[in-house]
Amino acid sequence: MAQLGLVGLGKMGFNMRERLRAAGHDVVGYDRNTEVGDVASLQELASALSAPRIVWVMVPAGEPTRQTIAELADLLDEGDLVIDGGNSRYTDDAHNAELLGRHGIGYLDVGVSGGVWGKDNGYGLMVGGSEADVERAMPFFDALRPEGPREESFAHAGGVGAGHYAKMVHNGIEYGLMQAYAEGFELLDASKVVQNVPAVVKAWQRGTVVRSWLLELLVRALDEDPELDDLEGYVEDSGEGRWTLEEAVNNAVPAPVISAALFARFSSRQEDSAAMRAVAALREQFGGHAVKTKKVSG
Amino acid sequence: MAQLGLVGLGKMGFNMRERLRAAGHDVVGYDRNTEVGDVASLQELASALSAPRIVWVMVPAGEPTRQTIAELADLLDEGDLVIDGGNSRYTDDAHNAELLGRHGIGYLDVGVSGGVWGKDNGYGLMVGGSEADVERAMPFFDALRPEGPREESFAHAGGVGAGHYAKMVHNGIEYGLMQAYAEGFELLDASKVVQNVPAVVKAWQRGTVVRSWLLELLVRALDEDPELDDLEGYVEDSGEGRWTLEEAVNNAVPAPVISAALFARFSSRQEDSAAMRAVAALREQFGGHAVKTKKVSG
Amino acid sequence: MAQLGLVGLGKMGFNMRERLRAAGHDVVGYDRNTEVGDVASLQELASALSAPRIVWVMVPAGEPTRQTIAELADLLDEGDLVIDGGNSRYTDDAHNAELLGRHGIGYLDVGVSGGVWGKDNGYGLMVGGSEADVERAMPFFDALRPEGPREESFAHAGGVGAGHYAKMVHNGIEYGLMQAYAEGFELLDASKVVQNVPAVVKAWQRGTVVRSWLLELLVRALDEDPELDDLEGYVEDSGEGRWTLEEAVNNAVPAPVISAALFARFSSRQEDSAAMRAVAALREQFGGHAVKTKKVSG
Amino acid sequence: MAQLGLVGLGKMGFNMRERLRAAGHDVVGYDRNTEVGDVASLQELASALSAPRIVWVMVPAGEPTRQTIAELADLLDEGDLVIDGGNSRYTDDAHNAELLGRHGIGYLDVGVSGGVWGKDNGYGLMVGGSEADVERAMPFFDALRPEGPREESFAHAGGVGAGHYAKMVHNGIEYGLMQAYAEGFELLDASKVVQNVPAVVKAWQRGTVVRSWLLELLVRALDEDPELDDLEGYVEDSGEGRWTLEEAVNNAVPAPVISAALFARFSSRQEDSAAMRAVAALREQFGGHAVKTKKVSG
Repeated sequence: MAQLGLVGLGKMGFNMRERLRAAGHDVVGYDRNTEVGDVASLQELASALSAPRIVWVMVPAGEPTRQTIAELADLLDEGDLVIDGGNSRYTDDAHNAELLGRHGIGYLDVGVSGGVWGKDNGYGLMVGGSEADVERAMPFFDALRPEGPREESFAHAGGVGAGHYAKMVHNGIEYGLMQAYAEGFELLDASKVVQNVPAVVKAWQRGTVVRSWLLELLVRALDEDPELDDLEGYVEDSGEGRWTLEEAVNNAVPAPVISAALFARFSSRQEDSAAMRAVAALREQFGGHAVKTKKVSG
Repeated sequence: MAQLGLVGLGKMGFNMRERLRAAGHDVVGYDRNTEVGDVASLQELASALSAPRIVWVMVPAGEPTRQTIAELADLLDEGDLVIDGGNSRYTDDAHNAELLGRHGIGYLDVGVSGGVWGKDNGYGLMVGGSEADVERAMPFFDALRPEGPREESFAHAGGVGAGHYAKMVHNGIEYGLMQAYAEGFELLDASKVVQNVPAVVKAWQRGTVVRSWLLELLVRALDEDPELDDLEGYVEDSGEGRWTLEEAVNNAVPAPVISAALFARFSSRQEDSAAMRAVAALREQFGGHAVKTKKVSG
Repeated sequence: MAQLGLVGLGKMGFNMRERLRAAGHDVVGYDRNTEVGDVASLQELASALSAPRIVWVMVPAGEPTRQTIAELADLLDEGDLVIDGGNSRYTDDAHNAELLGRHGIGYLDVGVSGGVWGKDNGYGLMVGGSEADVERAMPFFDALRPEGPREESFAHAGGVGAGHYAKMVHNGIEYGLMQAYAEGFELLDASKVVQNVPAVVKAWQRGTVVRSWLLELLVRALDEDPELDDLEGYVEDSGEGRWTLEEAVNNAVPAPVISAALFARFSSRQEDSAAMRAVAALREQFGGHAVKTKKVSG
Repeated sequence: MAQLGLVGLGKMGFNMRERLRAAGHDVVGYDRNTEVGDVASLQELASALSAPRIVWVMVPAGEPTRQTIAELADLLDEGDLVIDGGNSRYTDDAHNAELLGRHGIGYLDVGVSGGVWGKDNGYGLMVGGSEADVERAMPFFDALRPEGPREESFAHAGGVGAGHYAKMVHNGIEYGLMQAYAEGFELLDASKVVQNVPAVVKAWQRGTVVRSWLLELLVRALDEDPELDDLEGYVEDSGEGRWTLEEAVNNAVPAPVISAALFARFSSRQEDSAAMRAVAALREQFGGHAVKTKKVSG
């Protein structure tokens, strides 16, 4: 069994520490919230690990990850290895690899999929970096991924950046899949031809072409709330969908479904739409069509 | 100058009577609202006209138009001519023509564009029916259309149904045009890079590639309300956009822009979206992502 | 074990006969192609079954199904039951039920999902009709559906039409899911950041959020042809996607993903696009932008 | 009358020189192609102008423009003014302004719309920069823009970058407008209900809601080629549409129409689509649906 430093013990990192330990690995965890960590600082983390060290970073993408990696570049030594398992943009990876490389430290970028279910089910993993670094970290990958053939939950996607790129596209697809189910659900809900919508969705779980893990989650959600009316139709987006669309544009790849899914999220968060006010204004101008004006209290 | 019966004196029909009279024609108008009509019933209308009669129907599409035409089939005589100038679905036209034809009455379907501005500017006209019937009604078409070469505001589009078909596609295009301006307006509004959005839109009126009559109307609207915030972003649709999309589907014609414009209107009218509740539910299920739950008073 | 007449022994019906017989049922099959059938005519089929009979129709949707049901209305007797398991439009079901009902014959509409895999895996089933008729046919439903809890592969969706409606929406969702994977695949393929695209897709099968049966089929396809370049990007559509979009429009439900998936299929079948010729023409007109003109052989 | 240096005498710059001279201005033009230029180098251009100089840059966006501006920073003097009238990305403007500012040189970014028609019709202009710099350049703006009220073809959109931002959004809208007309044209063309499609499009020029300058250009194109079949449906994109979509994403503004128009162009340039090969592969896998395989010559 092997030793791993793990930075970031939030929803994902906390569960991953559990799964790694259950597999017999020696995990030293650090988190800004020192109550959940095993050590109180990155420095302590570095000291607690035997060289050559492997440190897995699992903190929010963007500045927090870049900052953590910059600190690790100073704290770690030649021959160590840093793994970024967060949802970083793939364009960050070259910078990270180069910075760490100047200190002789290796780098892998890993896309980790599976959400809160990963602790028990295992995580799907997509990795970018050198063959040698991938081999070094393989015991941890094997512990984190689900049972079954390695190639069904793990891929060495390519060089530095390829892991996060694969994860980005994975999430773009995820946006499209979710929106496809969502449109179907709304149509069933609105049309009233099907009297028992949750029963139909539940029956799609076996034998049908649309069966999937996301569908099973939709069944779970409908079991708890058959009309989903405890929720608001308000959906955040986390960046990966936006990056996927930007990449599609950069590569001249048509992405009508992924963009539609992203725009539906944008719309869901608007209380009022400037675009639709413009359309309403135009209709009023040319046709004298009735419009809704805002109520003004006197 | 010629004589015309005009059924329906609403926003469109009323103005058209004005324009036809201004051109010297003898118009006998009828409306359910007898205060605006010249006669009190369809029967009186039929009696007031000299044979061979021409009656222009300008009532709401669907049942009202079909009903009016059925009544005219009984009241008019062989050699008369009925014109449906409303926004009827083109599939109604064959029925109308056949019904009237059994009585020896001719039929033209006319798409009329121009909205409330038509009274002064004239209306664009697209006509379906026989050459002979079109010739008979030409004095009225010439009076209704704007000045300038006839072919720039009038087309004999084809046989029965072709006029309404052309108008349907015209309106589908109109949906797309409006949404294109609207998206641009919202982006200017949201991004804050341009400090004077109404001034920019106003400056697009001459010389630019995007100049159009709709743009001029947007300028008018912004003159009255520079942020368009007296309005709600709530937009009705009247059927023509839906039919255009259905026709596109029937003809296997990709219509991503027209459909997007239509769906934006649907979304604008939803207080909450079942689809987006489903997406929110899925995100909560797999990721433990925060969602908005409905406030319960208690 | 029970007796069933089965009309239509094509790709679906043939396999279903196998699965029903494997479950011990007595199936009498008829097909226009008499080589695969057990009887040579619908009349023989009716004679071969003991009253009260149950006849499952599995022929192409539209005229063939309507025709078959009209013939069965004459050949069967009061107390018999007809099941339409084809991909009929749900609006046909009320007509079928009414026609058969005049002869005292019951009717169920069943959406059957699972494709060529259903013979071994079982089929997902969505049923519309009366509770009593559903109960009568339950032994066949239980034989056709996969193992596991009944409610995970079978739903009594509602009254007549609800089964086909649920299947229609299922297929609309299917269009969206496939297009989502397809866009992601194309982006991976085009961007070249990921060096081993098939390995990444394969690794999505366990643990990830996007795992599904369709994904497993994509893995199979990539195993056989890693770049999918033995195929042309030419995709038919079978009607269900079109109907889903039409229903969405009728119910004012935004369906940007399902429509985008359908339009992508339309586009895939066009050698040249009139719309894009129009855009090219416009660009040439205003900007003198270079366009591609067709080669003319001399 | 005032003196202007003009760098870049391509399709746009050449015409602008004509229009500026016709208005009485003294224009010294430079182009890499010395046959069309008045001077042979940027250095000569700088020498030929009397201080304080104004130099208008009209070269391809990106590296050529950045390079030209860097050279002008060295050649010009404090108090001079550089104007970038090309289709530069607005994010370049801050860099340009800062670089020139270090030499005491002013900077304006100008979006210029109107294409090859601008020489005779005038150009629509959107300007970013300081009030004082805008005032200095106003004689040239007034010469370039169409006749009529200044505010209908000219806007001081805001600070540095706002001119190009406004032009970017203008072009995004343009993509949407063109695609809307294009979809309508294809539907008319495909459906065959309208017998004379060019006549209908021509008749939309006066009175209708969809009348616009782009429509007039479509009429011109149809006059020359009634089915537009001398052209291929192959459409380039120049960057502005991509940037608009990226800005929409950055600002969480739904842009379904603009993105659909952009994706239609991407698709128009694909001989075969990897995405649609994936969909075809999936259909073959689950349904045994017929697919098109590539012909292999023996």
